[in-house]
Amino acid sequence: MSNNERLVQLLASSHDFISGEKISEELGISRTAVWKQIKKLEALGYELEAVTKQGYRLLYTPQPIDAAKVEKGLKGHRFGHTIHYHKAVASTQPLAKELAEQGAAEGTVVLAEQQLQGKGRLGRIWHSPYGKGVWMSIVLRPATPIQLAPQLTLLTAVALAEAIRSITELNVGIKWPNDILHKGKKLCGILLESAAEEQRLKYVIAGIGIDVNLGENDYENELRNKATSLRIEKGAPVDREQLIEAFMMKWERLSDLYDQQGFEPIAQLWESYTISLGQRTLITTAQEQFYAVPLKLTERGSIVVKLDDGEEREIFSAEMGEVKQ
Amino acid sequence: MSNNERLVQLLASSHDFISGEKISEELGISRTAVWKQIKKLEALGYELEAVTKQGYRLLYTPQPIDAAKVEKGLKGHRFGHTIHYHKAVASTQPLAKELAEQGAAEGTVVLAEQQLQGKGRLGRIWHSPYGKGVWMSIVLRPATPIQLAPQLTLLTAVALAEAIRSITELNVGIKWPNDILHKGKKLCGILLESAAEEQRLKYVIAGIGIDVNLGENDYENELRNKATSLRIEKGAPVDREQLIEAFMMKWERLSDLYDQQGFEPIAQLWESYTISLGQRTLITTAQEQFYAVPLKLTERGSIVVKLDDGEEREIFSAEMGEVKQ
Repeated sequence: MSNNERLVQLLASSHDFISGEKISEELGISRTAVWKQIKKLEALGYELEAVTKQGYRLLYTPQPIDAAKVEKGLKGHRFGHTIHYHKAVASTQPLAKELAEQGAAEGTVVLAEQQLQGKGRLGRIWHSPYGKGVWMSIVLRPATPIQLAPQLTLLTAVALAEAIRSITELNVGIKWPNDILHKGKKLCGILLESAAEEQRLKYVIAGIGIDVNLGENDYENELRNKATSLRIEKGAPVDREQLIEAFMMKWERLSDLYDQQGFEPIAQLWESYTISLGQRTLITTAQEQFYAVPLKLTERGSIVVKLDDGEEREIFSAEMGEVKQ
Repeated sequence: MSNNERLVQLLASSHDFISGEKISEELGISRTAVWKQIKKLEALGYELEAVTKQGYRLLYTPQPIDAAKVEKGLKGHRFGHTIHYHKAVASTQPLAKELAEQGAAEGTVVLAEQQLQGKGRLGRIWHSPYGKGVWMSIVLRPATPIQLAPQLTLLTAVALAEAIRSITELNVGIKWPNDILHKGKKLCGILLESAAEEQRLKYVIAGIGIDVNLGENDYENELRNKATSLRIEKGAPVDREQLIEAFMMKWERLSDLYDQQGFEPIAQLWESYTISLGQRTLITTAQEQFYAVPLKLTERGSIVVKLDDGEEREIFSAEMGEVKQ
C-alpha cells in the first residue's frame, strides 16, 4: 500500500481531526512529507479541512468512474457503447475529433477524470478538476443537414436536463441555447463542434462538462455567483456513473424521437424546461448589446426576441444576461 | 536548356508533324528517349497528335499560372491577397484547412497546377490534371451562423458563374445547389467544408475546381456526356490568371453585398442564373428517389419541390437529375 493509500485509510477511519504529528508517526514519514501527501490527495479530488493545532479531517472522498461498468450498463445502446477512459487529458474534445476522423461509430465516448485544458465556448477554459466532474466528448453522426445542426444542441440540453432531474431531483432549467442552470447558477457546459461537407454533417463532437461533485473551493470567488455543482445544490454527492448512464439513455431516446418525428417534440420538451422565454434580459451579440424579451424558439434553433421599441429580431448566437429562476 | 525544353521549342517551331527520327537527330537522343520525353510533356499538360510514319504535332501548350502576378492584381483585396502556389499536391483542401487552423486570414488561397487526389463531393476524386485547371481552396471566415452556411455555397456559385460569363462569354447556368453547367455539362465543382463551434462558423474552406483548358482526351468516355471544359465549350484556351482574378473580385463584391444586405440580393442573382427551377426532374436523396418539379429556393439554401401528387417537400441535400439547358 502506498503512503497515499495509507493516508486515505487513516483519514477515513475517523470523523475527527487527525494531527499532522499522528499521521507522521503512523506513516513513518516526516511532517513535510505528510504535507506533500495531503496536497497530492487534494489534487486527486479529496477535500480536507485543515485546522491549526488540530490537524486534518477528510470531508469528501471522490469515487473514480468505472468506465467498464458504465459500458456494460449501456451495452446494446447506440450512445456510450464504447468509452475511452483517461485519468487526465488536455481536453477530451480533440481526442474525440481524432476518433471521428478515423471512423469511430456514433456514440463513442472519450471520458476523463481531469482535463488540464478543458474547452469552453469561444476558446475559454473549462475548469475540470480531478475526479469530480463528468468531462466527456461524444462522437455523433447525425443525418441532420447543416442548416438544422442547432437543433442537436437543443436536443442535447433537453437530454442532459432530463438526466439531471431524474438522478438528482433538482429542478434544473435550460437557458438558451444549452446552459443548464439551477437557481440561476450554471451547472453544465455543452459545446457542439461540427464538421460539414456542404449540407452534410460529417460528424459532430459534443463536448459535455457537468459539475457533478465539485466543492465550494473548486470555484474561484468571481465564479461562485455564476456557477455551481450538483453536489452543492443537492447537499450530497451524486453518482457519476448513474448520471452518465441516465444521460446516454435519455439522449439516445430523444435522438430516436427526433429521427422519427422531427424537431417538434424536442422543441416542446425544450420549452417545458427553459427559463429563457418571456423575461426581459440583456442580450450580447458579436455586434451589439440590447435588452429584449425572448419570445419563442424557431425551428432553426434561433430565438425571436422583442426589442423595447416593439421590433422583433431573430438571434442566432448571443450571450443572454441573468435570468431569475 | 533541358531535352524537355528543346523538344517543346522544336515542336512549337512548326505547325506540321515532326518525325520521331528528326527529333532524335536534333536532340541527339535515342528514339526511346524521344518517346519518354513526349510522355513527360503530356503529363505536363501539353497535347500532342501522334500519327504513324508522320511523327508528332503540338496541339496545345499549357501556360503556367503566375501566382505573384495574380496576387499583385488582387492587392488590397480581401480575396486572393495571399496565394500558396504549388506545382502538385495531393489535394489543396487539407492544406487550406491547416492554414485556417493556424489562423490564416480570410481570402488566403492554396492553388496547385495539379492535384493527385483532388476531392469531390462524398469522397469522390476530382480529376485535376497538370496545368489545365483552376484547382484551389480558399479560407473563408464568414460571420454567418451555421444555420445559414448553405447560403455561402449559393453565393460562391453565383460568383463563379459571373466570373466565367465575364471572361468567356459562355452562357453558363447554375444547377442547384452549386454546379456550373454549359449545355447540360458540368464545368466546375464547388465543395464547401465547414468547421463550426456551436452556431459559429470557425472557418469555411471553399474548394474550387474549374475545368478551364482540359482537352477532350482528359475526359474518359463515360464522363464526356457529363463534363466539359471552358476551352472545349469556347473553342479556345482561356487565361487562367484572368479567370482567377475575375472570380476573386466577383466573390468579394458579392460577399460584401451579402454582409450589407443579406441573402435576398444573392438569391435573386442565383435565380437569374439557375437552370434548376420549373422543370420536372429526378431527385435522389440519401433515402429515396422520386420525380418532382423544383419550385423555389429558400432562405436556408434548401429547395422546395412539388411531387407528382401535389405534395410540396423541402430538400436540403440531393442529387438532381439531368436538366435541359
